[in-house]
Amino acid sequence: MSARTGAVVAVGDELLLGDVVNTNAAWLGEALAGAGVHVVHSAAVGDDVDRVARALRRALEDADVVVVTGGLGPTVDDLTREAVAQVAGVPLERSAALEQALRDRFASYGFPFPEQARKQADVPRGAQALDNRVGSAYGLRLEVDGRLLYALPGPPHELRAVARDGVLPELAALTQARVTTRQLKVAGLGESMVAERVEAAVTVPEGVDLAYLAGEGVVRVRFSTDGDPAVLEPVVAAAAAALGDDAFTQDDLALCEVVGAVLRDRGEFVASAESLTGGMVGTALTGYDGSSSSYRGGLVVYATDLKHALAGVPQDVLDAHGAVAPETAGALAEGVRERAGAHWGLATTGVAGPQEQEGKAVGTVHVAVAGLDGTTVRSLRLPGDRDAVRAVTVTMVLDLLRRRLRDAPPAEGR
Amino acid sequence: MSARTGAVVAVGDELLLGDVVNTNAAWLGEALAGAGVHVVHSAAVGDDVDRVARALRRALEDADVVVVTGGLGPTVDDLTREAVAQVAGVPLERSAALEQALRDRFASYGFPFPEQARKQADVPRGAQALDNRVGSAYGLRLEVDGRLLYALPGPPHELRAVARDGVLPELAALTQARVTTRQLKVAGLGESMVAERVEAAVTVPEGVDLAYLAGEGVVRVRFSTDGDPAVLEPVVAAAAAALGDDAFTQDDLALCEVVGAVLRDRGEFVASAESLTGGMVGTALTGYDGSSSSYRGGLVVYATDLKHALAGVPQDVLDAHGAVAPETAGALAEGVRERAGAHWGLATTGVAGPQEQEGKAVGTVHVAVAGLDGTTVRSLRLPGDRDAVRAVTVTMVLDLLRRRLRDAPPAEGR
Repeated sequence: MSARTGAVVAVGDELLLGDVVNTNAAWLGEALAGAGVHVVHSAAVGDDVDRVARALRRALEDADVVVVTGGLGPTVDDLTREAVAQVAGVPLERSAALEQALRDRFASYGFPFPEQARKQADVPRGAQALDNRVGSAYGLRLEVDGRLLYALPGPPHELRAVARDGVLPELAALTQARVTTRQLKVAGLGESMVAERVEAAVTVPEGVDLAYLAGEGVVRVRFSTDGDPAVLEPVVAAAAAALGDDAFTQDDLALCEVVGAVLRDRGEFVASAESLTGGMVGTALTGYDGSSSSYRGGLVVYATDLKHALAGVPQDVLDAHGAVAPETAGALAEGVRERAGAHWGLATTGVAGPQEQEGKAVGTVHVAVAGLDGTTVRSLRLPGDRDAVRAVTVTMVLDLLRRRLRDAPPAEGR
Repeated sequence: MSARTGAVVAVGDELLLGDVVNTNAAWLGEALAGAGVHVVHSAAVGDDVDRVARALRRALEDADVVVVTGGLGPTVDDLTREAVAQVAGVPLERSAALEQALRDRFASYGFPFPEQARKQADVPRGAQALDNRVGSAYGLRLEVDGRLLYALPGPPHELRAVARDGVLPELAALTQARVTTRQLKVAGLGESMVAERVEAAVTVPEGVDLAYLAGEGVVRVRFSTDGDPAVLEPVVAAAAAALGDDAFTQDDLALCEVVGAVLRDRGEFVASAESLTGGMVGTALTGYDGSSSSYRGGLVVYATDLKHALAGVPQDVLDAHGAVAPETAGALAEGVRERAGAHWGLATTGVAGPQEQEGKAVGTVHVAVAGLDGTTVRSLRLPGDRDAVRAVTVTMVLDLLRRRLRDAPPAEGR
């Protein structure tokens, strides 16, 4: 059976009305690519059996493998089983074994069994049920005219569990050619600058794709191939050499995780003092498992007087330079380093907008890092709206710490 | 011309590979519904002129109005103009006026004009160009076999600007029947509890839709109609009466904005002390324009000793109860209220996971609010993973403040 091209159909009125962003399609696009199936078509349709069936027919025209998500629950709105049966030209049959398993599951939770949940034991004739470890909606697997059709539940964690258990391994085995992807991530440089440096150093061989993806101050440089993974090694090595220390990971880690791992290895801790970011740096540094072994805490010094009162910025610095100034950023970083008892202090101050502040334009930002070996400030003029300015500021201060960590000898206790 | 049903086609390899989540489709779904156009079909296709054309033909089969997004830039990958011309059966023609406007735009930025940008002046015969205030890619408007086809740029801020200027007003005028939507938002109650209370009190009339949407601790109760908007008034009033003070807005505001507006009207300020949320409460309270008139700042007390050192939680409270305890939450709220000079202090402490802490299970959370009239603590056991626990915690502490503000007389200075 061929399994080179894929199509994704998402079912649910909420997707068409804009109530829910279709993150399942993005996840499946990446997961299927990893299993060697190239998604060529993605669609969303409402909870209407004829529209779902039409979307499935079109998807089966376009692709070898079709994955439909959503509409497998117990309510009257859940019509994907009916649509799959219609497209396959087979009846729905209730599985006594699945019904018993559903009853057992409800009993194990101590819940009464709702009669409408029996519907979830209906299976199109010839289809296999795919086990769902994390919910009550089974997936389905069916062959239709030599094409593979999978139906998966809509809640993202259920979709992912059923796909990982019952879909991706089969597809990876069918396609043989797995796509291998390697990526480098760069902070603090523009996309065109990154591309220029990579392309001056790297000749991309036949069968390797190169893509740049930019957002929130980070540029991803991605190489992929569906051929021999070994072909990527020299390419990635050349790109890494060209980017040098500007690339912060080859392992698809977030910048906060990279910084956290370096700190943990050194036995050092960081603290944050935030003005325009209001807590986003702390949120990032506490966002992953294990963050307590590198992050101590910090200060949110949104009101100007708190920069003095909580973080110890000298009043004469604030009087002379204002809240948005390199001197203030540096003093904030030093203040929080001291007050939170950390090896490193981070600080952000700036104008997120929409209004200017102290006569300084929207996008004026200063980030600072204080350490045992001194304080570094970087002054920026960031484009975009309030959300964009704040998000890039977080990246810039974490990247400044990363660069300082690269150059500084580890602290001897503190 | 009929304009009751709509279809959205998004163009770009990055959508199929999962590199970018298709937020444009969600935005357009909601915006078109607001202009009286019900989206019945949404698709994403790669940068391939034949696939784009096929997707457009299918969309034109399904709907009166088709909006295609992306692929209008200057590069060789940008093929939407060609696909639109192919579907309409007309040639592309270069517009001298548009080319001059492009040249003028580049000159005004002080950039040289790249020859490949001339392509953006190509227009399918019979199409109108739609002005783009915020970028260089024009939109297109074309009638194809009595159906309306709009092509809009892919970057979200450009899409929104062109749609607002050149698409939505025309559609709203054509449909006459605008969809009117009213929603209530509720924090701190489960979806089924909200539904039970609403449905006991409200009889939903013919022509009105009722939907529930839940996420991050907030349930939205949405009524919509494409008939006379007046029919919604008694329904919304009945639902509002049934939900009482549990509903925090009828105006589609975020909880942080509602709380911020109440504080501003009272002339009061809030401060935050965060453990498991690591800065997310501060991020929310600084996330909208005008937040400096109600939020002062706060403390991130991730490490246990900082709960004492920075927030003044008595050491004997920490020794007796630990970091995750109602007593500690209350003391944190009181401490930050005092130290940040605010009328109100908020605190969060708990176990986000994945490991338990101090023998307390993942999802154990205590939130607290301290004010002039005392301190309130709410203890919770939240389901879900680290991200879910942290997000719901933010909602719960803001909602606790909202309820305190409802009951407390305004402060007299401080």
